[in-house]
Amino acid sequence: MASSAISSSCRDSGEVSSQISLKSVREALIRLEDSIVFSLIERARHPYNAPAYDRLYLKSSGSSLAELFVKEAEHLHAKAGRYENPEEVPFFPEDLPSPLVPSYNYPQVLHPAGASVNITKTIWNMYFNELLPLFTAEGDDGNYASTLASDLVCLQAISRRIHYGKFVAEVKFRDAPLDYSSAINNKDKDALMKMLTFERVEEMVKRRVEKKAMIFGQEVTIEDKEDDNVDCKVNPSVVSRLYGDWIIPLTKLVEVDYLLRRLE
Amino acid sequence: MASSAISSSCRDSGEVSSQISLKSVREALIRLEDSIVFSLIERARHPYNAPAYDRLYLKSSGSSLAELFVKEAEHLHAKAGRYENPEEVPFFPEDLPSPLVPSYNYPQVLHPAGASVNITKTIWNMYFNELLPLFTAEGDDGNYASTLASDLVCLQAISRRIHYGKFVAEVKFRDAPLDYSSAINNKDKDALMKMLTFERVEEMVKRRVEKKAMIFGQEVTIEDKEDDNVDCKVNPSVVSRLYGDWIIPLTKLVEVDYLLRRLE
Repeated sequence: MASSAISSSCRDSGEVSSQISLKSVREALIRLEDSIVFSLIERARHPYNAPAYDRLYLKSSGSSLAELFVKEAEHLHAKAGRYENPEEVPFFPEDLPSPLVPSYNYPQVLHPAGASVNITKTIWNMYFNELLPLFTAEGDDGNYASTLASDLVCLQAISRRIHYGKFVAEVKFRDAPLDYSSAINNKDKDALMKMLTFERVEEMVKRRVEKKAMIFGQEVTIEDKEDDNVDCKVNPSVVSRLYGDWIIPLTKLVEVDYLLRRLE
Repeated sequence: MASSAISSSCRDSGEVSSQISLKSVREALIRLEDSIVFSLIERARHPYNAPAYDRLYLKSSGSSLAELFVKEAEHLHAKAGRYENPEEVPFFPEDLPSPLVPSYNYPQVLHPAGASVNITKTIWNMYFNELLPLFTAEGDDGNYASTLASDLVCLQAISRRIHYGKFVAEVKFRDAPLDYSSAINNKDKDALMKMLTFERVEEMVKRRVEKKAMIFGQEVTIEDKEDDNVDCKVNPSVVSRLYGDWIIPLTKLVEVDYLLRRLE
C-alpha cells in the first residue's frame, strides 16, 4: 500500500504533516520498482510498433501519435488533479487545464525552489530512444492506442521514481544540514554526488529489480516448475540495466539539482 | 508476447488470416490473467477514494469523475484506433471520434452479427459496486487521476478477457458446427451453457489466478524467504473469486450471446 511516502502519513486521519522519513521514502521507492517492472511487462505484450513514434505518420500534424497521446492524456490527468501532488511531474507542462476537483491538501515537504526540478525531457528521450527497443520485439501489430497507453504508464512510473530524488534529497539534507550546506554553498556538484552515492545499496537495488523481473515475468503454471526463469516476458538484465544506467544516475541528478536550490 | 490470439498470426508478415486456433485463444487468455492481476495490484496502491465515484462531487456535472475520466480516455484511445481491433469494446460507444490513424487490417474472424455483443454495462457495475471495495483499503489519498487511470486499466483488461468469449465461441463453433447449430436453432441457452462449461478447467483457472496473485503480489527481497505468501498486495482469494463469480460466468454469457447470433 505504501505508494507514497508523504500522503501515507496523513491518509485517513485528515492530519497534514511535513514529516517525511527515510523509511517511508525507501518503502515508496521499493513499491515503485514493482510498478515499473509490471509496466514494462505490459508494454512488452506489443511489438515496437514504429508508426506510433514516427512524426511523418500523421499527415496533418507535426507531432508523433505518441506526443499527441501523452499530451492529451496529461490534459485529462490534470483535470482530475494529478499534478497537484508534488510527486507528479508532467512531460508537457505547457497549457495544462486547471483541476475540476477541489484541491487536496498534500503535505508540502519540499523546499519551494527545488520542487520545480523537472528532467522529463531527458526521461522521454531515454525511454523512447534507448530503453524501448531493448525490451520490445520488432514488428507492428496495429494496437497503437494500447501500446501508447502502456508507454504512458511506463513513463509515469519511471519519471515518478526519478523525481522522487527530490524527497530523497530533502530527507538527507534534513538529516545532515551542515554537511550538505557547505557543498551547496560551494556549488560543488562532485562533492554532492559523492555524498549521495552508496555503491553497495545501488548494487542491491539492481539485483532486487532483476529478481523482480524474473518473478513477475515468469510463466506461472499450476504445477511447480524449477526452471521458471527461462522465458521471462522482459529480460531481467534489461531491468537491471534500466536501473544501473538510467534510473539511479538520473535520480541522483535530480537530488543534486534539488540540493543546489535548497538554500535559495 | 501472445497478447492477442488473432493479430499474432499475422504479425510482421503483413499476411492476413482468418485462422484462429483454440491454442492461440487459450494463450491469449492466460496472458490476460497476468494483466488483470497486475492491474488490480496497481489499483490497490491507492485506497478506495470515494470522491472519484460520487456523482455529487463535481458540482457542475451530473457525472462522476470516473465517468468523465473513462469517457475522455476512450475518446483519446478511439483517435489512436483502439476500437478498430475487434478484441476491444468501449464502455461509452456513443460519439466516439474517428481514428486519426490509417486503418490496420485486423483479421476478421468473428461472425458479423455476433461481433457487436457488448456487456460493458454489466462489467462496469460489477467492477465499481462489487469488486473494487473487496481489494482496496478504506480511505482517501487524493490521487484521483492516478486512481482512475488504474481503474481504466483494470476495466479494460477485465472487459477484454470477458469479450474474448466471442473468439472462444467462434473457435468452438467451428470445431463442432452441427452440435452447436441445433441448440442455436432451438434458442436453447441452457444447452449452450452446458456445452460451454468445463468445471475441471474452470477450477484450474481459479487456482492458477490465485497463484498468480500470490506470486505477483508478494514482497520480493534479495534474500529468499519461505513465507512470502503472507502479505500479498491483493488478497489471492479475491482474484479467485473475481474469476469464479464474475469473469468466467460473464465470459460464458458472452459466448452464449455470440452463438445465438452465429447463424443470422
